[in-house]
Amino acid sequence: MQIKLINLSLPFSLYWWDPVESNNMCPKTKKELLSNSTMAEPKDELPAVIVLGRPSVLNFYGDQFSSKFRLLKPWESSLPLDQFISTHAQTVQAMFCSGTTCVTPSLLRQLPSLRVIVTTSAGLNHMDLDECRRLGISVANAGTVFSEDVADFAVGLLIDVLRKISVANRFVKNGLWPLHEDYPLASKVGGRKVGIVGLGSIGLEVAKRLEAFGCIISYQSRKKKPVVYSFYPDVHELATKCNVLVICCALTDETHHLINKKGQIAGAGLDVFENEPNVPEELFSLDNVVLSQHVAFFTEDSFRDLYELMSGNLEAFFLNKPLLSPVLDD
Amino acid sequence: MQIKLINLSLPFSLYWWDPVESNNMCPKTKKELLSNSTMAEPKDELPAVIVLGRPSVLNFYGDQFSSKFRLLKPWESSLPLDQFISTHAQTVQAMFCSGTTCVTPSLLRQLPSLRVIVTTSAGLNHMDLDECRRLGISVANAGTVFSEDVADFAVGLLIDVLRKISVANRFVKNGLWPLHEDYPLASKVGGRKVGIVGLGSIGLEVAKRLEAFGCIISYQSRKKKPVVYSFYPDVHELATKCNVLVICCALTDETHHLINKKGQIAGAGLDVFENEPNVPEELFSLDNVVLSQHVAFFTEDSFRDLYELMSGNLEAFFLNKPLLSPVLDD
Repeated sequence: MQIKLINLSLPFSLYWWDPVESNNMCPKTKKELLSNSTMAEPKDELPAVIVLGRPSVLNFYGDQFSSKFRLLKPWESSLPLDQFISTHAQTVQAMFCSGTTCVTPSLLRQLPSLRVIVTTSAGLNHMDLDECRRLGISVANAGTVFSEDVADFAVGLLIDVLRKISVANRFVKNGLWPLHEDYPLASKVGGRKVGIVGLGSIGLEVAKRLEAFGCIISYQSRKKKPVVYSFYPDVHELATKCNVLVICCALTDETHHLINKKGQIAGAGLDVFENEPNVPEELFSLDNVVLSQHVAFFTEDSFRDLYELMSGNLEAFFLNKPLLSPVLDD
Repeated sequence: MQIKLINLSLPFSLYWWDPVESNNMCPKTKKELLSNSTMAEPKDELPAVIVLGRPSVLNFYGDQFSSKFRLLKPWESSLPLDQFISTHAQTVQAMFCSGTTCVTPSLLRQLPSLRVIVTTSAGLNHMDLDECRRLGISVANAGTVFSEDVADFAVGLLIDVLRKISVANRFVKNGLWPLHEDYPLASKVGGRKVGIVGLGSIGLEVAKRLEAFGCIISYQSRKKKPVVYSFYPDVHELATKCNVLVICCALTDETHHLINKKGQIAGAGLDVFENEPNVPEELFSLDNVVLSQHVAFFTEDSFRDLYELMSGNLEAFFLNKPLLSPVLDD
């Protein structure tokens, strides 16, 4: 059996955030917030938020964030990071960070006034949640903002690998078509047995799309879900039953190196890597491997939604309202 | 408005061939055929079929075809084509050809005994059907054998163009990720308004798949169809209402150069070209253009089905049975 592997293991949580509901709610909340005295004060009186890990959403919505919060950005300071943090240690209550920020007990000790952490990642593998809980620090994440985009990308990678689209693109752009070089037959998408590792919000969106192509869906998950797809508690058994595996589980101690060795792999589409931005160079020359730089979530739409959710969480915190996408059971 | 264009204008006919039904039927028919005296005779007594245009299915199923038919292949002869044809002119009743064979009145005059033409293409733009009808020559084509594969490829191209998968693949494989180069945000697939030009069997399969991504489907067609999608009789009106156009109409006098100029195009995925295998070289350097060499149908599964259908049509002809995928109203 030849397995094809689609790895989109963007770690994600199982907490639900309904974008429709939030869209309906946000404008009102925002108006309310803007009329609030805290928010309407001069810029240096805006609520302070320390920003770590330089979230890329700031490249696109930096001005909007800065109109609502006084962002404390270590990369704009001449101070070393530790000193920058200690300057604000006694006052700063809110942290805004990305998935590259390791939220360790020692970092938390440096910020004794911290009450909330808002992370742009769906995954939480970079945070010591137990320590946050112990210290009474609330956490909000990206929820399911990225799920549809990541699922779209997963299906795009799957079609690309099976139908050799990137290979064809290179073939034509290198001017090889008129040379009548031999070109291999591809694999049909429909009828393929696809195993989804991790049937969270992303896995469910992947399944919904691939059903429309006539794929036969199975899944592995910690628990059986109320769906019609075949359930395999063991990932190895799932692999033996499938032609294609789509990896969309959260990165945890249990899933670390879950997929390690699987006989001969016919092809792979990989968006997430262990030591980003470094990718094993032996993959670069392989026609049957399609690579991307952890951009399965990287759309204008996702970033707009992410901006709304992240700023909404921070605003909610400063207004003593419930977070929009809480991760811990507060 | 920025339009994205997916061109898969693999010409196809509207005649229906049900692969499931045919799969159920074929084994019986084949056994019947093999037990038939005509088919069981020595190889040089097998029914003769002239092969023009060198159908690529022979690269994969050549032996199987040759076990059933005496294939007359001009490319294996030292005679010039015209002379080769005239050698067989008085006897050959069946032609097997590809979409690159121009079936003109003059070619038909060279083969006065011809009674059937079986073409591996879905499209019929290469054949003078009126002349075939006038001469009482039956025609069979690839029917809808390719529809699912072509639709899969169309959706693959669409995701690739919107989500920049080929661009990302090149970016990573060229080792640019660690350089932290700027990378543009992509467009979400869901919520996009997709206009399908030509809602035949391929267009319907494309629509079914894109619905699962949350796209909003409209279409242009000669006639309104019994579907829920919005119908626009005029392709220009469709274009003004949509973000993406997917071209899957047959090539006819009416559709020739149908899409010619559309303001600024944000990106394009193109599988079919006017002067194949030549592609305008100015497209080669464009990141927002994904190209492939007319391979939307090029899968193991399609070719297996195509072999079954093509040999089934030829067998049916020699047994005086109805063709499996007739094109003319016989």
